[in-house]
Amino acid sequence: MTKKVLIVGLGLLGGSYAMGLSQKGWQVDAIDTDKYAIAYAKERGIIQNGASEHFEHLVQEANRIVFALYPTAFVEWVKQYRHLFQKGLIFTDVSGVKCSIVQPIQEMLPPEVEFIPSHPMAGREVSGVQNANTEMFRPANFIITPTEKNTDAGIAFAQMIAEDLGFAHICELTVQEHDKMIGYVSQLTHAIAVSLMCASDRTDLAEYTGDSFRDLTRIARINETMWSELFLENREILIQEIDTFTNTLETLKEHLQQQDSEGLKTMFRTSTARRSAFDKKR
Amino acid sequence: MTKKVLIVGLGLLGGSYAMGLSQKGWQVDAIDTDKYAIAYAKERGIIQNGASEHFEHLVQEANRIVFALYPTAFVEWVKQYRHLFQKGLIFTDVSGVKCSIVQPIQEMLPPEVEFIPSHPMAGREVSGVQNANTEMFRPANFIITPTEKNTDAGIAFAQMIAEDLGFAHICELTVQEHDKMIGYVSQLTHAIAVSLMCASDRTDLAEYTGDSFRDLTRIARINETMWSELFLENREILIQEIDTFTNTLETLKEHLQQQDSEGLKTMFRTSTARRSAFDKKR
Repeated sequence: MTKKVLIVGLGLLGGSYAMGLSQKGWQVDAIDTDKYAIAYAKERGIIQNGASEHFEHLVQEANRIVFALYPTAFVEWVKQYRHLFQKGLIFTDVSGVKCSIVQPIQEMLPPEVEFIPSHPMAGREVSGVQNANTEMFRPANFIITPTEKNTDAGIAFAQMIAEDLGFAHICELTVQEHDKMIGYVSQLTHAIAVSLMCASDRTDLAEYTGDSFRDLTRIARINETMWSELFLENREILIQEIDTFTNTLETLKEHLQQQDSEGLKTMFRTSTARRSAFDKKR
Repeated sequence: MTKKVLIVGLGLLGGSYAMGLSQKGWQVDAIDTDKYAIAYAKERGIIQNGASEHFEHLVQEANRIVFALYPTAFVEWVKQYRHLFQKGLIFTDVSGVKCSIVQPIQEMLPPEVEFIPSHPMAGREVSGVQNANTEMFRPANFIITPTEKNTDAGIAFAQMIAEDLGFAHICELTVQEHDKMIGYVSQLTHAIAVSLMCASDRTDLAEYTGDSFRDLTRIARINETMWSELFLENREILIQEIDTFTNTLETLKEHLQQQDSEGLKTMFRTSTARRSAFDKKR
């Protein structure tokens, strides 16, 4: 039996899902507001059918959907079109925040329709189906965040997607654990890189910078629409992370002001030891 | 005529200088307190002669020296042994800070002895002559920071070292420009990475982290003795950089608190534009 899925939102991530799943023998259909994205993907066999308008029949026929939309657009879409969902539909998403979207969506669903939230921790600095590629999934984590409303069938669907796309590591977290983790390992680091770039215009120093500076600021090139959504949807956790980080940087500054060499060395030993743990795990 | 140089301090950087210059046909002698480092380098032809004690004759005979010591040890060494320097001696260093060492050293030198300061912006997370390698010089910057006390001959010596070691980019800055640049592109980024690791123990999150987190924190593995010296010797500039950065991160936090999407987007646009400049320059 052919596995079938409808992808709503055929950007970089939706397009890469479509490409990877098609390669694995799935029948992939897609909806996107951009008719050129649909035509592009159809022409290249990335999808079989697609529509940018009059797409109701695609939704009505679907019993598996992946939403690859920005978080707020995702919530709005479900609100507007949920009446089209068939019984037995299971769908997942790709959102980088969970607390602010999972409960609202799960609560507005008709009976026998299941939303199993998931987050592929993969992305690139480019966008659009034209840049679709499945290489970015290979080293990446795929996180499933089931709630008490999810079933084994729902979780199995998300797992199958992740396996067929070739993610290195598939795991489960609660919605709350996910957002707290993402606030630290992803959002705080992006906030730091952006602030480092915005603090002052030092582009005149470009010729003097080494790898460490480039590594640290690579993520300062950032999709403003997506990241402002992700930051705002997770703002309470991110504000807390910024405060914790800033307090620690202030401690380091106090060691400098007091010329406290031992205080600095203690911090350096701690950071060296902890950073080693991040090397070993992979 | 064979080019000759004495290297004082045969660690990772001194050892790599010795290796690279020997390969280019220089006669390289070395002094290090560790007799095993000297024996190791001599055995492998990295140096010709070396001593860990009774090294006075090596200093007296030298008319070119590279000091590859930590900044404070460098100043102390010159104070203790400058009476051995011959007239016509030109020497350089490898220190990552300049303001705090260049003037004191230049002022304590006997007549007709010249210190031309330079900074090879290369390094690795390992130490010791056993890890010596010249690969790290290839993509790196070499910065010469002459003062009004330096001569064309001194600058030419530093340039020749950099050329023979294969640095990608050789340039001149004033001592003050150097320390200000290094405070931003190197020290502030290390302070941030260390603080991110020290803020809280999140080693449990290692399995969820992606490349961006790993890139940003790679430099949190840090040589505590060297970096506490570098930070303290440049503390006024570094404190100022930390303040500027923290204020900007606070601005980002205020945008979050006020749910100011436009404010965030403006920062993201600025950081994206500025970061692009750092890509283009190489």
